[in-house]
Formats: sequence, structure tokens, C-alpha cells
Amino acid sequence: MNILYDERVDGVLPKVDKASLIKALEAALPGVQLLHAREDLKPYECDGLSAYRTTPMAVVLPNTIEQVQTLMRLCHERNVPVVARGAGTGLSGGALPLEQGVLLVMAKFNRILEVDPDARRARVQPGVRNLAISQAANPYGLYYAPDPSSQIACSIGGNVAENAGGVHCLKYGLTVHNILKVDIVTIEGERLTLGSEALDTPGFDLLALFTGSEGLLGVVVEVTVKLLPKPQTAKVLMASFDSIEKAGRAVGDIIAAGIIPGGLEMMDNLSIRAAEDFIHAGYPVDAEAILLCELDGVESDVHADCDCVRDVLARAGATEIRLARDEAERQKFWAGRKNAFPAVGRISPDYYCMDGTIPRRALPGVLKGIADLSEHYGLRVANVFHAGDGNMHPLILFDANQPGELERAEELGGKILDLCVEVGGSITGEHGVGREKINSMCTQFKPDELTLFHAVKKAFDEKGLLNPGKNVPTLHRCAEFGGMHVHHGKLPFPELERF
Amino acid sequence: MNILYDERVDGVLPKVDKASLIKALEAALPGVQLLHAREDLKPYECDGLSAYRTTPMAVVLPNTIEQVQTLMRLCHERNVPVVARGAGTGLSGGALPLEQGVLLVMAKFNRILEVDPDARRARVQPGVRNLAISQAANPYGLYYAPDPSSQIACSIGGNVAENAGGVHCLKYGLTVHNILKVDIVTIEGERLTLGSEALDTPGFDLLALFTGSEGLLGVVVEVTVKLLPKPQTAKVLMASFDSIEKAGRAVGDIIAAGIIPGGLEMMDNLSIRAAEDFIHAGYPVDAEAILLCELDGVESDVHADCDCVRDVLARAGATEIRLARDEAERQKFWAGRKNAFPAVGRISPDYYCMDGTIPRRALPGVLKGIADLSEHYGLRVANVFHAGDGNMHPLILFDANQPGELERAEELGGKILDLCVEVGGSITGEHGVGREKINSMCTQFKPDELTLFHAVKKAFDEKGLLNPGKNVPTLHRCAEFGGMHVHHGKLPFPELERF
Repeated sequence: MNILYDERVDGVLPKVDKASLIKALEAALPGVQLLHAREDLKPYECDGLSAYRTTPMAVVLPNTIEQVQTLMRLCHERNVPVVARGAGTGLSGGALPLEQGVLLVMAKFNRILEVDPDARRARVQPGVRNLAISQAANPYGLYYAPDPSSQIACSIGGNVAENAGGVHCLKYGLTVHNILKVDIVTIEGERLTLGSEALDTPGFDLLALFTGSEGLLGVVVEVTVKLLPKPQTAKVLMASFDSIEKAGRAVGDIIAAGIIPGGLEMMDNLSIRAAEDFIHAGYPVDAEAILLCELDGVESDVHADCDCVRDVLARAGATEIRLARDEAERQKFWAGRKNAFPAVGRISPDYYCMDGTIPRRALPGVLKGIADLSEHYGLRVANVFHAGDGNMHPLILFDANQPGELERAEELGGKILDLCVEVGGSITGEHGVGREKINSMCTQFKPDELTLFHAVKKAFDEKGLLNPGKNVPTLHRCAEFGGMHVHHGKLPFPELERF
Repeated sequence: MNILYDERVDGVLPKVDKASLIKALEAALPGVQLLHAREDLKPYECDGLSAYRTTPMAVVLPNTIEQVQTLMRLCHERNVPVVARGAGTGLSGGALPLEQGVLLVMAKFNRILEVDPDARRARVQPGVRNLAISQAANPYGLYYAPDPSSQIACSIGGNVAENAGGVHCLKYGLTVHNILKVDIVTIEGERLTLGSEALDTPGFDLLALFTGSEGLLGVVVEVTVKLLPKPQTAKVLMASFDSIEKAGRAVGDIIAAGIIPGGLEMMDNLSIRAAEDFIHAGYPVDAEAILLCELDGVESDVHADCDCVRDVLARAGATEIRLARDEAERQKFWAGRKNAFPAVGRISPDYYCMDGTIPRRALPGVLKGIADLSEHYGLRVANVFHAGDGNMHPLILFDANQPGELERAEELGGKILDLCVEVGGSITGEHGVGREKINSMCTQFKPDELTLFHAVKKAFDEKGLLNPGKNVPTLHRCAEFGGMHVHHGKLPFPELERF
């Protein structure tokens, strides 16, 4: 697969003269690393969604905020699109470069500027790795809560751009709930501060608007994050079920009992068997589904919650309930879950990972719907997900070498996302829209709503130069995609904006 | 005081022909309550900030969302400004009407549409009172967390518009953290849904952007809130200090010890004596400051936290620490705090309540600064505040009948807000900017940032008809106010937007 930026639908961006651009960059940014030879650009042609690849015209790796400002001013003046990239671990093609654009790589912004244990916050550069923040806070008994599974590698700037979550976001919130302040540089080269160290900031909440905007509104150049005290203790319960719907219902029951687990994950039989075969986590291979429920906090509290969750699980029809007897077993239970994706990779030549989010109460129905779709399309689907917050990661198993299977997998994936939207959910939980789910946005939102997105985009980026073709589709695209009603060839909004 | 909308600075809004407007409203909205006689308009001329008064041209009280849409379309077409009003309890003049505009009163939207205990959410109309939601959720052991002190009267639509907080927001967050979905009607009459029942929503986070936008972006017509399980138990500790700075430092120490109290409030000697005289709460009248620290949650957990907070307070130099021995004493401790404002009203003819927010670590320094300012201006200041989240409510005591005292009080208030901004805080914690603090926004934000606010406003309301003159000042206003550098009579942005 090598899908190029779809110019037919999103409009042709202005042609950029490469020789002249490189010359201008060299003149404006002396001493800054600038890549433009074919072989040097290769590592930057995709992010974590490697099915989508484009070679950028140039890659710039600045060292200072002033250099970022200079770059942006230059590109703005010359109408050159800019795509920002953090660690490149994103799974929706949000950092996919443009052939006619500059890729701004923030890798050199990798310093932790300040850890203030009393105020419980850290000020860091955007290229700092997620896990590195917790490591720096560790001597003070603190940590940074959001923990995407790529946390060893992903950078905090990218976390802000995608509003990243993780196993613990049910209890501790997404990125937007764990940051205080972000400094950005706009496409016009202005440096702005969004949010503050105070509880609330007057005016419009641009920090929340910016978080998760996937590089369309500006480039993150500094982040102030909140730090939390590390929980005293953590325990994990594993419950087995003879039907996946029962496990789905048990999730709602736990929350309804007044408990917010640190993590609440579900795996179906296909995932259980794949993971057990790979990791030997001690999973029950005959169970139709398992739930992993982590309880963390003060010792006495965790103990009481464990008892309560056990009761709820038993009433929900669990066939077996096991408490990890020690830290080693707890780690093993989690290792199975954390390696479920590569484990599925061992039993199928290819798989396609979805990221739909649904209201918890819709879990049993949607799981049944996915099973029906799986049968209809003749493709196996493994279900592994953050059950507590309704964030599903169905893995569609296929073989790209079998003619038509990839297309069937993509179609099945689209149907699963439609199902999520139908029950009041959304097409992405934590991976973002990026390039991958741009068409599904036409299903998720009405033209009125998309028009509002475009107007907000315009408020930050009049010319539409920041990460065009991602996150928010043009109405043209939606019309072509068929996700919008077109009457007599006329779009509902005559003055179609492109960005 | 009778401050009219400052047309000189924010620009003259188009003249509206009253007779023609009333005729059009009657024709478009048959059967809808419409007030336009002078005596009927009286009750609507101010909100909770009664120092600012304006008589609106007309008041409309629709019953259905369709009627709101019709009203908005009509006003949009005729260029008539619209100010939306909930219960009118706001303290910053956010619902102050316009002489040349319609006041849209949402009082008839007072139904709780659905309480779903399993999903832990409630769907309500915007005119529903904050406390009524918790009352409806009570049979299920649930409640709605944000609790502004006006919670008996204030409506949830207004809470969304102001991003309301309360005593418990340190632990449980502001309104934005406790809502899932808001339906709005735009100035063009479109109905849009912001947010979803799912964990996260793709595209830009318009729900967060909208929350706290003070009626400038649209009118709330339905709200889906999160419900939380009621805490098992709650205990209150009262600690006395011989200096207010020591009390300020103890606040930071408690948070640094890894405890997030349900409430953490501070009162200085002047407030303590006023409250004790009024309520007989059992406060130590010789103390320079007291802290009230509420711990809530599971029984065993609360017990452990109490011990820990006691130690921290003792180390911080508390001269006395008392645990409310029973529920009655707990209620009494809180009654003193909750009645501190009226208590201060008993010892001074007038007072002016501020609402600055600062980083916790800046507390001791800012308290010292306020004491110096108080001395300089010769006006007493009582300090009562949500110490845990750095949200201060200094009450400036004055006598409006003494020539010059009001002006001195306003100037002193402005200086206190400047001090808040200086230490990295903000000019408002929970009361909003509204009409009252519009000039302080010129200090809080740079022209670049204000321009971005204007562009966002334009994305929702091109003509600038929704609640003009509130929340976000024009650059013209900032120039007149002197909060912006004007070089040779030229504003930094030649194309000044007005809304």
C-alpha cells in the first residue's frame, strides 16, 4: 500500500519550487539541520501508520523556538505547507508528510526544563518522551499519568497534538486533563501561551481547543504538565466469562458500583489464545472473554474495592475470578494484554487496528454487531480494548496477499466505525483522525459542524498551510466520499473552503 | 452606580427600531412570552452584579428549541444583538442586557429529561437548577459535583457559559470536567451538538472551547452531565495560624503530601471575626488565619488522610487543630465559611468581591501584597477563599457614601488582579470576565492572543451579535484603557475588529 495525499479531493496545493525553497531555508536558518536528499528523507516518509507513505520535499530539525518561528514565517510567506512531527509513533497518519511541503521535526527539543514537586508540575520541551517525564518525577514520588502504549518512544508534543490516552485514562483522564499550559508557534510565526498555571484561564479555552487538534492549529514548543503522586499500591483481578456480552455488561456493573478502576481492559477468545501462546501469561484459553481490572490507591481502599469488584463480577456471571497473588503475577497479567497486538500479528499475516469509542452501555450490542460483521465479511476480528472507557481496538485479521482481502478489511473497518457513531460513539478514541479516518469524519459530523471546524481552523491558519488533508475533511471530500447528501450536484455550502 | 454599555469604546451597535422588532417577534413567535413594556423589563436589567444595569429592548422567554432557533434567525437577519440569560445569578455582569438588543431568557427550559444511573449521566434542559440535578440523582446514590455557592438558584446552562466551579472543584473539577455533551443554537439558528457520550470526540474540542465562553459563541439548549457516586463519609479539620503567610504555606504542604482534599478553604482574621459574630461557628477569633480542610471518600481512607493532614498542619506551625466531632459541628464550621460574604456585609456599608486565581505557591507572597495595597489605599480587605486551587475572593470594604471610596475600591481591585496576573495567575477563577473585568483582559492577554480570540468568535458569530461587549475586549478598548502599547497613535493591528 502506498497511498498518496489525495489531491483530487482536497484540492491541489500550490506547487513549490524545491531549489528555491532549499536556498531560502539555508539562508534563513544557518546551522540548522536541513535534509533534502532522497535517501535522507526516507526515514520520514511515514509515521506509525506505515501503510501511508509520502516523501516530503524537505525535513527541518530546528534547535530553538526562534528558529521554529523563522521557519514558520518563511513558509507562510511562500505558501509552503508545514507538517509537524514528534516521535512519529502516531497510528493515524497525522504526521504523514506532503510531497509539496516541509516536515518540521521537533526531535531536538528534548530537554526537561523544570520539575517543581511542590506545585506538582513539570515544564518540558515537546520532544521529551512521555516516560522520561515520569522518570524525572520519580525521585519525588510523582509521575505523569497518561500512558499510551508507545510511552517509551512517543513525545509529549505529539501527545498534546493527539490528546493521547492510555490504560489509565479512565481514572486519570486524557492529556487535556493533565496539562496546564502549552506554548505554541502559529503558522505566522507568533509565539502564544495557551492556558496558565492557575486553575482556570479567562477568555476562550484555547488550551483545550488546541489539545487534540492534530497539528492543524500550531506547533507545540513547550508544555507544562501536571504531576500526580504515585499510588501506594496496585492490585489486578482477572475474571473469565463464557460470553463476551456478559463481560461487556460486567464493565458497566463495576462502574455503576461506584468504583473507578485504574485500568479496566477486555480481551476476547481470539486475543486471549494469541496472547497466551506468545506470552504464557496464565490466561484461561477456553474463556470467551476476560476482564483485567486494576485497582490502585491507598492500601486499605484498594483492599475494600477488590472485595466489591469480586462481588460484582460474580453476580455478572464470571466463571472464574483470580487476584494476581504478587507483583510478578500482576506484571504477567498485564504483559499478556500489552502484547496482544504483536501476538495477533503472529497468527495472521496482516491486521488492521481500529480505534472506535462507544458509550459503555452500548458495549454488549456493539460486540454482537462486530461478530455479525466479521461473519458477513469472512474475516476474523480480535477484540482487545480499554473497556472501562468504551475505547475499542478491534483488530481485523487479513492477508494482504489474497486479492481483495485488504479492501474487505478496510470496508469492514469502516462499518465498525459507522456502528460506533450510530450508538452515540466516535470514530477515534486515542489514535486520532489523521489521514486514516478523514473520510469517517463525514459520517461523524454534519456539514454545519464541519463548516464550524473550518472556520475555527481559519482563525488560526487563514491560508490552510498547517497539516492540510488531515483531521477535518473538506466538504468536497465528504461529497465525493458519499458521506454527505448532495442534491442535484449542489453541495449544501456553495463557498467550499479548502485547507 | 449605573454603568451603561460603553459604546464609546466597543463601537456603536446598529440602531434597532423597537416597534418593527416587536412586530416581527410577535409574528414569528406566536404564543411565546414577549416582554417590552418598561415595568416588565425592570427585573431583567441586571444579573447578580447589580452595580451594572441596562434595560433591554425586549425580553423573550421561549418554550422550545425550535423557538430559540426562530428567534436567533430573526435577530441574525435584522442585525439585532442577543444576550442569553439563565437564572441571572452571575457575578460579573455576563447577562447584562443591551438597550439595543433582545434578552433571551431560558427560564422555561427547566426539565430533567433523563437520569441514567448505569451510565452515570443526566440529560437536562439548560434552565434546570444546579442543585436540582443532584436531587434527581440522589435516589441512585449519585450527585453532580460542581457546587457554586449559588447552587440553589443558578442554572446549568449558566454554569456551562461560565465554567462554574465551587468548594469541591479542587478535587472534582470545574463544569468542563463534569459534562459530556452540550447542544447549542448558533446565532444563525443552527442546532449543533458539541461533545458526545463517548470518552473523546474527534475533530477540534468545541465542547471545551464553548464551556466558559460566556454567551459569545451560542446558546445552550441541552446539557448532558456526568454524575458521581456520593462519598461514603466526610470530615472537616479546622487549623488556626498566627500568620496568614503560614496558613498559605500549609495549603501547599497539604497538596505536596499527596492529598487532594474535597475542600480546602482559608479565611483571614477580619473574615473570621465577621463570620463568628454572625454565625457563632466556634471560630478562634484571635487567629490571624484559619484553614478548613474537608476530606471525603471511603471511611478508612478518610481516617488515614485526617492523620496525615494533622501532621502536615502541625509541622506548618498551626497553633490549634480541631476535627469537627460530629456532623452538626462539621455543618457549623462550613456555615461560617459559606456566610462569610454576608457577614462582611454586616461590618461594612459596601464591599467589592474580587475573583483572582494564582498558582498555589504564590499564595504567601500575594497575601502580603494585598495587605500592602490595603494599607496604601486605606481600605480594609477581608480574605476568604478556595485556597486549595488558588482561587481568592478578597473582599474590599468601603463606603459608597464617602466621596472617592468607590473609585479607590475599584482601583485597589484592579491592582489586586494585576498582582494575580504578575505571578502567573488569572483575573478570574469562577465568576467569569463578563462586563466587569473586560478591561483587565487587556492586562491578561497580548494583542496577538486577543486577535486570536476575535478570530474564534468570528468563526461562530461573524456579525458579532452574541453578547457583545463582554468577555473579550476589542483592541480599541484595550488601547483606550491603556492596557496596550500604542505607538504614535497607531494600534498594533490596523484592521480592528469590533464585536
